[in-house]
Amino acid sequence: MPGTETAYQPTDRTVPTRSRDRAAYDRDLVHAILDEAYVCHLGFLRDGAPVVLPTLFGRVGERLYVHGSTGSRPLRMAGQADPGLPVCLTVTHVDGLVLARSAFHHSINYRSVVVHGIAHQVTDPEEKRTALDALVDHVVPGRSADSRPADAKELAATAVLRLDLDEVSAKLRAGGPHDEPEDLGLPHWAGVVPVRTAYGTPVPASDLGPSTPVPGYVTAL
Amino acid sequence: MPGTETAYQPTDRTVPTRSRDRAAYDRDLVHAILDEAYVCHLGFLRDGAPVVLPTLFGRVGERLYVHGSTGSRPLRMAGQADPGLPVCLTVTHVDGLVLARSAFHHSINYRSVVVHGIAHQVTDPEEKRTALDALVDHVVPGRSADSRPADAKELAATAVLRLDLDEVSAKLRAGGPHDEPEDLGLPHWAGVVPVRTAYGTPVPASDLGPSTPVPGYVTAL
Repeated sequence: MPGTETAYQPTDRTVPTRSRDRAAYDRDLVHAILDEAYVCHLGFLRDGAPVVLPTLFGRVGERLYVHGSTGSRPLRMAGQADPGLPVCLTVTHVDGLVLARSAFHHSINYRSVVVHGIAHQVTDPEEKRTALDALVDHVVPGRSADSRPADAKELAATAVLRLDLDEVSAKLRAGGPHDEPEDLGLPHWAGVVPVRTAYGTPVPASDLGPSTPVPGYVTAL
Repeated sequence: MPGTETAYQPTDRTVPTRSRDRAAYDRDLVHAILDEAYVCHLGFLRDGAPVVLPTLFGRVGERLYVHGSTGSRPLRMAGQADPGLPVCLTVTHVDGLVLARSAFHHSINYRSVVVHGIAHQVTDPEEKRTALDALVDHVVPGRSADSRPADAKELAATAVLRLDLDEVSAKLRAGGPHDEPEDLGLPHWAGVVPVRTAYGTPVPASDLGPSTPVPGYVTAL
């Protein structure tokens, strides 16, 4: 049964041609990398050429959802296409800048997930609502319950695509530089500069009443 | 003459179907968004399906460079393909989480650049060296001059792709949420949570001599 194994089954597309030791298929790891990201990069074909667009996404178990206007290109294409739109959805976190003595061994520490599959338009109203809640909660966990849900008009204006987590891999690099033994005596500094996402002080909307408190799920970020 | 106008010429592919007010074509703006990013997401076709991979890149004027092992898939494909590999190269910065009273108007503030074009393998040795310096300096400006340059063996093991900045657009969202007038009285907090990249304390390589100082271009980050 899909989704009950602890790891995704590698396929020809998800086994890298090189640095195979950096590839991982564990579901929990993949979910964690996905859930930490605010945007994914969605690749699809338009007139035979690749297009890569940043977009918000949400996850419900082993399903990813992206949304957009019913007039946007990929969503129109997925609706027209039968049986769906071939996509590649990729998420990347940069965790550090890796400085080696040699230019050749410079790198970054990162965690990425690549999902291959066919995206389908969601037509079931219940699934669409669940997907939209997941999209809002992906930006700020807990937020969907503290906002006005989409009304019928907004639902009709929004198209949602579903992509099942099936052909999936993670790729990771961590740790310091790997210099050649003969370079270790060179005078250049070597090491890692950690990189992370930081949050600033929340800025209230200009039309927000001054007595509205900043909610706990925002201060928790 | 290409590269002398202050803005890129919009094309069918770079004019969005919606939110056209968010699109921009100014070269300086595009360069700034590109230069601030550590990775791009490179889209290409493999066996007719889209693939999106995160990768380092560098910029020299109106040319972008990505690199990889001569054995990696896209670089092999660009080498075989004549006249080059159709790609879409996308860079995105998340600047803020936009919380509206309505679920529908949740968004993020972002700056992105999308480049369409044909990538070509760089064969000229001088251009290859320039590209590799740019790749290192893209991670940490000034670093290429303070590291051991690639030797002949490393150069031979590295393939470099060039993508000219020609069919290019930026897209931006900034500012607060845009709620419907009838939602302004709802009790939900609304506003923006700023998001930025932060740097941690540099971690020296385990094999670095204790007397090697952290260089100024690192502490400047």
